[in-house]
Amino acid sequence: MPLSIKSKFSRLGVNNAPGQEVRQDAAGIETLLRGGPLPGIPVDFSHGDVDAHPPTPGSFEVFSAGVALGGKQAYTEYRGDIGIRELVGERLAAFTGAPVDARDGLIITPGTQGALFLAVAATVAHGDKVAIVQPDYFANRKLVEFFEGEMLPVQLGYAEAEEGRSGLDLDQLEDAFKAGARVFLFSNPNNPTGVVYSRDEIDRIAALAGRYGVTVIVDQLYARLRYAGVSYTHLRAREIDPENVVTIMGPSKTESLSGYRLGAAFGAKEIIARMEKLQAIVSLRAAGYNQAVMRTWFNEPEGWMDDRIRRHQAIRDDLLAVLRGVEGVFARTPEAGSYLFPRLPALAVPHDRFVKILREQAGVTVTPGTEFSPRTGDSVRLNFSQDHKAAVAAVERLAVLIERYRA
Amino acid sequence: MPLSIKSKFSRLGVNNAPGQEVRQDAAGIETLLRGGPLPGIPVDFSHGDVDAHPPTPGSFEVFSAGVALGGKQAYTEYRGDIGIRELVGERLAAFTGAPVDARDGLIITPGTQGALFLAVAATVAHGDKVAIVQPDYFANRKLVEFFEGEMLPVQLGYAEAEEGRSGLDLDQLEDAFKAGARVFLFSNPNNPTGVVYSRDEIDRIAALAGRYGVTVIVDQLYARLRYAGVSYTHLRAREIDPENVVTIMGPSKTESLSGYRLGAAFGAKEIIARMEKLQAIVSLRAAGYNQAVMRTWFNEPEGWMDDRIRRHQAIRDDLLAVLRGVEGVFARTPEAGSYLFPRLPALAVPHDRFVKILREQAGVTVTPGTEFSPRTGDSVRLNFSQDHKAAVAAVERLAVLIERYRA
Repeated sequence: MPLSIKSKFSRLGVNNAPGQEVRQDAAGIETLLRGGPLPGIPVDFSHGDVDAHPPTPGSFEVFSAGVALGGKQAYTEYRGDIGIRELVGERLAAFTGAPVDARDGLIITPGTQGALFLAVAATVAHGDKVAIVQPDYFANRKLVEFFEGEMLPVQLGYAEAEEGRSGLDLDQLEDAFKAGARVFLFSNPNNPTGVVYSRDEIDRIAALAGRYGVTVIVDQLYARLRYAGVSYTHLRAREIDPENVVTIMGPSKTESLSGYRLGAAFGAKEIIARMEKLQAIVSLRAAGYNQAVMRTWFNEPEGWMDDRIRRHQAIRDDLLAVLRGVEGVFARTPEAGSYLFPRLPALAVPHDRFVKILREQAGVTVTPGTEFSPRTGDSVRLNFSQDHKAAVAAVERLAVLIERYRA
Repeated sequence: MPLSIKSKFSRLGVNNAPGQEVRQDAAGIETLLRGGPLPGIPVDFSHGDVDAHPPTPGSFEVFSAGVALGGKQAYTEYRGDIGIRELVGERLAAFTGAPVDARDGLIITPGTQGALFLAVAATVAHGDKVAIVQPDYFANRKLVEFFEGEMLPVQLGYAEAEEGRSGLDLDQLEDAFKAGARVFLFSNPNNPTGVVYSRDEIDRIAALAGRYGVTVIVDQLYARLRYAGVSYTHLRAREIDPENVVTIMGPSKTESLSGYRLGAAFGAKEIIARMEKLQAIVSLRAAGYNQAVMRTWFNEPEGWMDDRIRRHQAIRDDLLAVLRGVEGVFARTPEAGSYLFPRLPALAVPHDRFVKILREQAGVTVTPGTEFSPRTGDSVRLNFSQDHKAAVAAVERLAVLIERYRA
């Protein structure tokens, strides 16, 4: 039965979402506190720090040129300016290794979040079954719930998987498809764990999608930020019906262009067409002037991306060293992206309280693991795209507090 | 019964939406053409011309300052930066004559379209009845259909109404409320006719909403662009439960800031809270840097707004003079906004074909009346926020073609 508006929204929590901590109060932790505050530069690991890792050089100048273009840039097709789509389409085809139809198979959206929303809205109606990875990006579940789809969870055994594999439970995925899932939605690299799916895993996903006629929405937001020695497989370039795949990317993360809210979805033409129909009533279009900034994407200065990756790898390694010095902490090495998802040991306070205590006593904001899977309540997500020194000091404070609150 | 995804999207047309004409072809009109092309500067009346009426002075500089602020401006609460909300909240309270709670009763959105989408999504679930004015903004109907609400149309007798009244059929509105409408959605000034609701009409809407417990969403996008002698009543400042009203405005039109995609919804706190929950999975937030541009809103240079209104009034009057010189054309004088909605006489070709012919033969783009009401297929909408001379010449070409195709 369709949901009433109240029950629909009661399931759509937002207070623990990254960046929303400002709307919470510290109520309920006073009686749990042990010891005093730990001084240090506050670090908000809930999202990246675009001051520490600034936007793509030249992005503001390209935006300014867009404003100077006037009405032509302000009012584009809902799916985005055709000139920019052609430019970006070519580059995405080169990057992913499969053709992109700039006219009919590509839409520019307000951020990758905008692309994800439209893609799910365009494929999931009331009662439709959707396979969702656990853990995965927290909005995936919420989107399926909002459109009243039925979620079929598929576990990602990232902690136990052999090197080079994500650990996706492929048997469980097939069971979900057999049980009638029409859509499979997942992120690769995985958010929050930073694992990359192996070629074999991607090929098996492709084969299963073909066999059961499932539409796959793959969020590749972090596909450019890959660490040394990691190989990456684009699903859309493998053996799969192009009309059954929508790929989502955007320059918000690695490129630090989040303040412009730009994303792109490309692939299945019929789904892209639906997404545009919907964008027309959701937000009309990605802000016209901002679309101009897409011109910088995949066109960064020579060596800039390599440098950005190198800096993130150095932060990752230093944080892992601190975390692995704490007894009972497990942390898999992220192969891509800027998320760390350590599992904490048993504590004397519930883990969701510990997250609040950490913020209050140590100025360290992390995202609780429950946002990503009901099974990862003992983990926390850190976006380590931060000032290097401040991030290391913050994780050292986390380590101190783990000892202080250890069960 | 809930709709399948295909039928849901089959009802969501977009090709006739303003600005999307570029995706149409001219097929189907060749055999209908009479005479040759009419030369002249092409005018796209589907939206305003921000080159002829440029954005608020200083808006780009304020945007630039936002970018310079870095991460603080890029990552705001989902409902928008609190400093900007406080600033805008005060100004909106002063403008509308009723308090605005900047913390809990205001959300900044990607354009007023974004606000409208979230407001409908936050109030209309499957099967909910919604009263919708005919004619009114084309997305209103589509939004209700997308959320599988049931539309109860209420006619706006704008052609027959006495001066100073919109002509809303208040008996029909009460019937819709009696029949169970939970939400009433309307624009004031009305899009596409430019009529303003009288104080008496607004008060009767308020009273009916109170009596039947209906939530009112009022789109006041054009409330600042009011012509000489027109008085305007803000629903939220009248006798109505503030928790039953959401007001929507934004700087996209009069202020020509559409390229930044900014809007605001304010009023009922519970609904605003739901809207933020949803914005978190729709687009996260209005683009962070762009939000800074809100600082210019209601803070334009002295005399700038008066001048803008005066220029639009002059265009309006010249276009009305041309239209009223054509036998059988009816055009009510818009009291606010930049839309004209003339009713055309009987033609030898269907009106939807005539709209295509007009574009092909005369370079004049208008929006077909069917987008606003099934009963106004003989009318067309013109956004006259255009270059003055080019607009007059374009409407003269429209007049020539009416004669050429007259039945």
